[in-house]
Amino acid sequence: MKSLKPILAITMGDAAGIGPEIAAKAFANAAVLDICRPLLIGNVLLMKKTLKLTGLHLKINGITDVSKAMFIHGTMDVYEICPDNDGVAEILPGVVSPIAGRLAFMCVKKAIDLALNKDVDGTVTCPVNKESIHAAGYSFSGHTEIYAHYTNTKKYGMLLADENLRVVHVSTHVSMRQACDLVKKDRIIEVILLLNDALRQLGFTHPRIGVAGLNPHSSDGGLFGNEEALEISPAIEIAKKKGLNVEGPVPPDSLFALANGGRFDGCVAMYHDQGHIPFKVLGFQWDKSTKAMKSVKGVNITLGLPIIRTSVDHGTAFEIAGQGKASPEALILAINYAIKLYNNKLK
Amino acid sequence: MKSLKPILAITMGDAAGIGPEIAAKAFANAAVLDICRPLLIGNVLLMKKTLKLTGLHLKINGITDVSKAMFIHGTMDVYEICPDNDGVAEILPGVVSPIAGRLAFMCVKKAIDLALNKDVDGTVTCPVNKESIHAAGYSFSGHTEIYAHYTNTKKYGMLLADENLRVVHVSTHVSMRQACDLVKKDRIIEVILLLNDALRQLGFTHPRIGVAGLNPHSSDGGLFGNEEALEISPAIEIAKKKGLNVEGPVPPDSLFALANGGRFDGCVAMYHDQGHIPFKVLGFQWDKSTKAMKSVKGVNITLGLPIIRTSVDHGTAFEIAGQGKASPEALILAINYAIKLYNNKLK
Repeated sequence: MKSLKPILAITMGDAAGIGPEIAAKAFANAAVLDICRPLLIGNVLLMKKTLKLTGLHLKINGITDVSKAMFIHGTMDVYEICPDNDGVAEILPGVVSPIAGRLAFMCVKKAIDLALNKDVDGTVTCPVNKESIHAAGYSFSGHTEIYAHYTNTKKYGMLLADENLRVVHVSTHVSMRQACDLVKKDRIIEVILLLNDALRQLGFTHPRIGVAGLNPHSSDGGLFGNEEALEISPAIEIAKKKGLNVEGPVPPDSLFALANGGRFDGCVAMYHDQGHIPFKVLGFQWDKSTKAMKSVKGVNITLGLPIIRTSVDHGTAFEIAGQGKASPEALILAINYAIKLYNNKLK
Repeated sequence: MKSLKPILAITMGDAAGIGPEIAAKAFANAAVLDICRPLLIGNVLLMKKTLKLTGLHLKINGITDVSKAMFIHGTMDVYEICPDNDGVAEILPGVVSPIAGRLAFMCVKKAIDLALNKDVDGTVTCPVNKESIHAAGYSFSGHTEIYAHYTNTKKYGMLLADENLRVVHVSTHVSMRQACDLVKKDRIIEVILLLNDALRQLGFTHPRIGVAGLNPHSSDGGLFGNEEALEISPAIEIAKKKGLNVEGPVPPDSLFALANGGRFDGCVAMYHDQGHIPFKVLGFQWDKSTKAMKSVKGVNITLGLPIIRTSVDHGTAFEIAGQGKASPEALILAINYAIKLYNNKLK
C-alpha cells in the first residue's frame, strides 16, 4: 500500500548560505520522515560536501524523476538540478556568487514545476540571497515574486506564523513612504480574505482577525493621519458584511501584544516592519555569549498560490555558513506548516 | 540624621483612571519606602476613597508644604492640590471629565514646580487622559509636552525602558507620513546624544547604541527609500566622530531582537510604533482567561529635561478603573528608574 504522507519538495536555497546545512539536518531528523516524504531539490555534489561538514551519516539517492525517490530513513533523496556540476566547486560559504544564485533559482523553479504538475504535494524553501539571484541575472526580489510569476498569481500575500502570532502584510518590500500610499481599501480586503482562508487551513474554524492601523494609536481619531478613516475602517466594514470576524483598526502597538496573548488568531499588518518587528522580537533570540542568533523560529507562508509554499523566515546567514552550526528549527517548523496546510486544504 | 534617600513627587494621574489606585498600592509597598521618600501629589478626598476601594490600611497626611511630610511606613503623604475639593465628588471611574483633567494637569504642574524648586529630587507620573486634559481646556498632547513647556526645554526625547530594551524615538505622535518627513540628520544626532546621556545615567559607562533604519531592511542599499543614505548614516557618522559607540542603520526588524538579546544597550527608533511595538510585545501580556493585560511593565522617561521625570508606560485603563485590580508593577519600576537616574546624575 502506497504511503499517504504528502511529498514535500524542499529546496536547498543559496549554497553559499546555511540552506544545504539546515536541509541536511532536517532530513536526518527522524520526526520529519514520520510526517512526510521529503525530497531535496538541489545538487548531489553540494549535499555530499554538506554531509561531510555536518558529520551526518546519510546516503544520497540522486534522481531526476520523483518516482525514483525512496523516502526511507537514512537516505536523502536529492532531485538533481545541476547534473554536470558546472561551477559548483567555485561556490564558497558566505560569498555572493552568480552560480549559487542560479542554482538557488533553479531549485525554486523546479519545485514550483513539480508542484504544479502534482508530482509533489507542497514546497518548502530554504533561504536565497537576493544579491546572488540578481548577480545570476534574475530580477526577482525574492521567493514570493518567483512563485507568483511562475504560478501566474496576481493576488497574494505573505503570512508569518509562529506560536500565537500569524501576520499578513498589506505591503512588504517598498519604502515607508510608498507603504503609506499602498494602504488602500481593496488591498486590505484582499489580505483579510487571504488571511481568513489561511487561518481556516491552519485549523481555525471561524478565525478572529485583528487589523492594525497605519498611524500611531490608529491616528487617535484622526489627530495624526486619515488612512484609518478613509481606507482601513471601510475595508473592515466590508469584511464584516461578508461574515468575517474582524476587528480594528487596532492601535499597532497593542495589536501584536494582544494577538500574542491569544486575543486574535491572525493579524493584518499595514507594512513590512509593523509585522516583522513583533514577529522577530518574539521568535528570534540573540545569544550574547556566542554572539549569534540562538533561535530563529518563524515560518513564512505565501498565500493565494495554487500550490503550497512555506519557508523559513530567516536569511542565508552568510556569517555562519559552512560552519555546521546553523539550526534546522525553523525549517522543521516550515515543514510542519506545509503538512498542516496540505491536511486542511480548502475545497 | 536626615535621610539621604531622594524625595520623589508621584502624581496621582487622572482620577477617573487607575492612577490613584496604583499609587496607593505603590505607597503600601514597603520596598518603595526603603529606597525613596515618596510624596503623592493629589487630593486627600480622592485618595481616601481609593484606600477604601483597595482595602489598603494607610493613614493619610495631607500637606501643602514638603517639609511637613513624614515619609514613614503606614502613612501616605499627600500634597493637596485641591483643598476645597471643588467638583471632586463628580469624578466617576472610566468617564472623561474636565474636572479630572484639570486635577491631573495641576498635579503635573505642581510636581514640576517642586522639582524645579528643588523641594523634591525627582518626579514620577501616573497616567493622564488626553481627552480629559483637552476637556479641561489645556492643549497639551501629553505629559512630555507639559514638562517641556514648563521647564522651557527645546530638545527632548522619550525613552522607553524595560529589561534589556531601551528605546528613544525620533518622532512620536505624528502620522506615518509626517514621521517619514521628520527623519532628519540633526534630530537623529540629537536623540543619539540624549540616549547616550540617559544610558550613562542608567549605569552604562560606554553605551552601545543601535540606530534603526526607516525603511524595511534599512532600504536594502537604497532599493526602497533613501532616508538611510541621506539622513541616518550621516548622523551616525557624526556621532561616531564624537566618540560614541553607535552602529547602524540596523534593519528595523533585527535591531530590537538584537537589543533584547543584549547586543545593544539602547536603540534609536525612527517613529513611534517602530519602538513601541517591540516594547509592548515584550512587556505587555494579555491574559486570555481574564481578558485583561496581566502585565504592563515598561517605563517612560523624558530625556533632556533639567529635572528627573519617569512614568508608567501604560494608559489610564478606564475599562478597569475603580475595580481595585490594577497592578502597580510599572509604577514601582518607574520609581526605581527615577532613583537610578538620581543616583547617577551626570555632572
